[in-house]
Amino acid sequence: MKVGFIGLGRMGQNMARRLLEAGHDVTGYNRTYEKAAALAPAGAEIVRSIADAAAAREVTITMLGADDDLAQVMEGPAGLVAAMPAGAIHLGMGTHSVAMSRRAATMHADAGQIYVAAPVLGRPDAAAAGQLGILTGGPPDAVETCRPLFAAMGRRCFDAGEAPEAAASMKLANNFVLGCAIEVMGEAFSLVRRYGVRPDTLYDMLTDGIFDCIGYKVYGDIIAKEDWDRVGMTASLGLKDANLALAAAEAAGVPLPSANVWRDRLIGAIARGDGERDWAVVAREQARASGLE
Amino acid sequence: MKVGFIGLGRMGQNMARRLLEAGHDVTGYNRTYEKAAALAPAGAEIVRSIADAAAAREVTITMLGADDDLAQVMEGPAGLVAAMPAGAIHLGMGTHSVAMSRRAATMHADAGQIYVAAPVLGRPDAAAAGQLGILTGGPPDAVETCRPLFAAMGRRCFDAGEAPEAAASMKLANNFVLGCAIEVMGEAFSLVRRYGVRPDTLYDMLTDGIFDCIGYKVYGDIIAKEDWDRVGMTASLGLKDANLALAAAEAAGVPLPSANVWRDRLIGAIARGDGERDWAVVAREQARASGLE
Amino acid sequence: MKVGFIGLGRMGQNMARRLLEAGHDVTGYNRTYEKAAALAPAGAEIVRSIADAAAAREVTITMLGADDDLAQVMEGPAGLVAAMPAGAIHLGMGTHSVAMSRRAATMHADAGQIYVAAPVLGRPDAAAAGQLGILTGGPPDAVETCRPLFAAMGRRCFDAGEAPEAAASMKLANNFVLGCAIEVMGEAFSLVRRYGVRPDTLYDMLTDGIFDCIGYKVYGDIIAKEDWDRVGMTASLGLKDANLALAAAEAAGVPLPSANVWRDRLIGAIARGDGERDWAVVAREQARASGLE
Amino acid sequence: MKVGFIGLGRMGQNMARRLLEAGHDVTGYNRTYEKAAALAPAGAEIVRSIADAAAAREVTITMLGADDDLAQVMEGPAGLVAAMPAGAIHLGMGTHSVAMSRRAATMHADAGQIYVAAPVLGRPDAAAAGQLGILTGGPPDAVETCRPLFAAMGRRCFDAGEAPEAAASMKLANNFVLGCAIEVMGEAFSLVRRYGVRPDTLYDMLTDGIFDCIGYKVYGDIIAKEDWDRVGMTASLGLKDANLALAAAEAAGVPLPSANVWRDRLIGAIARGDGERDWAVVAREQARASGLE
Repeated sequence: MKVGFIGLGRMGQNMARRLLEAGHDVTGYNRTYEKAAALAPAGAEIVRSIADAAAAREVTITMLGADDDLAQVMEGPAGLVAAMPAGAIHLGMGTHSVAMSRRAATMHADAGQIYVAAPVLGRPDAAAAGQLGILTGGPPDAVETCRPLFAAMGRRCFDAGEAPEAAASMKLANNFVLGCAIEVMGEAFSLVRRYGVRPDTLYDMLTDGIFDCIGYKVYGDIIAKEDWDRVGMTASLGLKDANLALAAAEAAGVPLPSANVWRDRLIGAIARGDGERDWAVVAREQARASGLE
Repeated sequence: MKVGFIGLGRMGQNMARRLLEAGHDVTGYNRTYEKAAALAPAGAEIVRSIADAAAAREVTITMLGADDDLAQVMEGPAGLVAAMPAGAIHLGMGTHSVAMSRRAATMHADAGQIYVAAPVLGRPDAAAAGQLGILTGGPPDAVETCRPLFAAMGRRCFDAGEAPEAAASMKLANNFVLGCAIEVMGEAFSLVRRYGVRPDTLYDMLTDGIFDCIGYKVYGDIIAKEDWDRVGMTASLGLKDANLALAAAEAAGVPLPSANVWRDRLIGAIARGDGERDWAVVAREQARASGLE
Repeated sequence: MKVGFIGLGRMGQNMARRLLEAGHDVTGYNRTYEKAAALAPAGAEIVRSIADAAAAREVTITMLGADDDLAQVMEGPAGLVAAMPAGAIHLGMGTHSVAMSRRAATMHADAGQIYVAAPVLGRPDAAAAGQLGILTGGPPDAVETCRPLFAAMGRRCFDAGEAPEAAASMKLANNFVLGCAIEVMGEAFSLVRRYGVRPDTLYDMLTDGIFDCIGYKVYGDIIAKEDWDRVGMTASLGLKDANLALAAAEAAGVPLPSANVWRDRLIGAIARGDGERDWAVVAREQARASGLE
Repeated sequence: MKVGFIGLGRMGQNMARRLLEAGHDVTGYNRTYEKAAALAPAGAEIVRSIADAAAAREVTITMLGADDDLAQVMEGPAGLVAAMPAGAIHLGMGTHSVAMSRRAATMHADAGQIYVAAPVLGRPDAAAAGQLGILTGGPPDAVETCRPLFAAMGRRCFDAGEAPEAAASMKLANNFVLGCAIEVMGEAFSLVRRYGVRPDTLYDMLTDGIFDCIGYKVYGDIIAKEDWDRVGMTASLGLKDANLALAAAEAAGVPLPSANVWRDRLIGAIARGDGERDWAVVAREQARASGLE
């Protein structure tokens, strides 16, 4: 399939590489050209404009970090909406707000194009291995068209239905559930430490039994060892996600009280200079509030 | 070993049976004699007083549901403290508050006896299979003495240190972490449902990846299917545990904001008549607050 | 009227003095006899037992600090229930839990006596001036009987209805509303301080307009001047009240989320050694969480 | 003084009228011309462009409802920044975010102009009577220049210092403190109602004593009478303010846990169709959560 790919950071590079390996014809674009160039040896054509990446492509993928980046790529005479052919699909794979997801869908619909949201679960190593979880939201026909691309990049698709914002809500829910699990662990670690329990004992208890899973093991270990600089996701990015989850919930009339607790801790951690540490650093903030630091 | 066993409900029966199978000499007592009698065919001697259960025993186990029950068993001229020989061990395996754990330790110390707390993780089926997790807190020698009993009843011990209340804090932390995980899932289910996502899709996404563990599978399934009457633990008992966790945290100077959120939902659920449903019913309360019921 | 008065601390002394000045015949009892003795010159008869204070009295007032104190005074062969004549009234004017209020009502009803709850609003100086607010809950006839006593001690009565626990709930609501108002002010002071606003400017703004009242002036001034040692009510007593309010709410099926926030701050403040400072010290705890200390 | 006035809604009209009465020369502009026209008989010159309102004016006041409105008025070749003479003052009197306040200050500084923030406290009737509270933030000289205008419109100024966002933070703090006071009252009303206390009794108790002030009387009365359609400020506008306060706090590294509680209730109330009712309707949402509706 002829695919445009906009946004070739660490995640994007690995995803595009999987597409090339599966035999797709990939044209890549990145705001910083040099980053995109690393993909050329793998067979991608690297271009210098959004228009060149998207013109005559059936599907153009974006893998961008923030709503503003996506809006900038889409808007204007040199933007993606102007460049895509009628009937073409914009496959948005970054983590975006439900508001931006809706807006993207509307902008493309007005131009006779289609927006499919497909945010992903997994880190760059999962992307390199084609093991991402992919959350799809969009018109069924368009999602079907993208199926071979999903097969190349992911391990499994989760169908959120016809609304792109539904897929966005799932991604935000995933990060919210994980972020709050970390927050709750942090509270538990402080509680037992005040009673003299060794952190690794609590870690063992939790992960040996009902929480024998990646989420609790990875972040429980960081907390138990206070290894805040083993960064999977920063506290600052965590706060961005907390705000996105709360905004999605507000728009849907849903209170999300656990997210408030989590967000407050992230704000506190960032205010104390831990913004670029792993987002498990909320546990350190809890420890401070518990007289443990 | 000669062991007294007080409190032969479903958990206690299964635990005592494991001790008998391992060759220990068990004397059983239950407030309601008939319940205890079921254990006689398995080889236990069933007695009609606490004194008869504890006299001349090296270790007497209690497996009682509430602090008040434990206090009643211990106090008074016909109570456990009066009945136990000097130097004997009271092994408290129920879930008790840190305050009660401390009080029990003091009462026994004043009588020249030893209190070891060893609350357990696992349901009656795990008890029947000798697969409990056991959280131990007490003087190392006394814990060592109990080791053969732990081997018969449990799969693994987690050593909380020398303070009985430390073991209590671990058990409360475990239930708090699980209860809040359920609460957070409930919030997430409401969020995505408002965007049209099917509950089982969220369930699949969460449990396929970072939350591929018993805790999320068992309760995520109840939430996804709204199967509130598949009761593992009732909302009313959950509220008891939430209050115990908050009291333990208060006594240690630890704020536990996620527990507040969880407790409020349990109160709401109970007020609407769901107190005897599974404690995952907090997700229903969230759904109500989200305009979904 | 012949009145017994049990509990002659600062509040009780001032209240009893008002009764004497209004011509009532007061028999006083205090656990520590010496404290009660100070009331003798004002005309009270000071006795050495609860029985002597309550026997042959139409009304016996208790002004005690905690539920446990009230329970101890009431229970046993030397207690108030045993001592009061049939048909006599126990007028409980301390701040008690709804549970204790109910229990007191039941105990007296079982003995053919009457319990009226009448917790008060105001500090010792208001008591000395007969300017207390009095919250009444009990059988209308009994409340009517106590009317001359209320007239001597108070400025105004607020009728909570026939249930003593209803009067208790009003007192707890009052302290909860005030405590949370202080907490919210504390958050606001931290917010504007981080933007460089002088605390006294915020104080002026708030108390000049919509919050031109005692509650905001007294505590806003303590916060603005960080004068935590000007103690009206300690943080530790505040935590007791927060717990009473939350327990009353739980028993009634009411979530009280603002009380959770307030309680967490009190716990934090106490853990940092501010338990005996004024309960406005929650604002200091907020300042710490905001990077301002 | 020659003054431009942009934004002639109910508040703006009343404020401009006060300026005219004090002898100032006012040129008025409103997006909807007809609204502005009502001011002509009072002596204002009504113009059809922002440029005409601001050109050759020493001070141009904006009284706009939202950040977006202010941004639109300021930006572009036909906007306020382009139209104002060098050295002139833009006096922003609407309630704006701290981010927008900072941005406005930067935009004007880049153009050699001055931004002074002066959000106000009070309703249209206070504006008509020249009784507004005015919160000033900006360079001292510029604030001094505006003093005669403040004298005409307000009762009292509160000096937040040299930063416009500091004045914004005070206005947001004011609304946050009030909104949370209402939320807490709502919780208290639910609590005592569940114990059978009449709402007006709680109202009397609160407002008779420590909360004898406008804020508690106005909103306590709405809650006690469930008179949600007596709208001073809508729940939807309240939510906007809650979000502004939380964003201001986040930017300053300040957790604002009471605002979370308040915001959740507003979201719930709006989701149930009460968005255009008075923001005291959070008390109704609490009543629902307490099984009272």
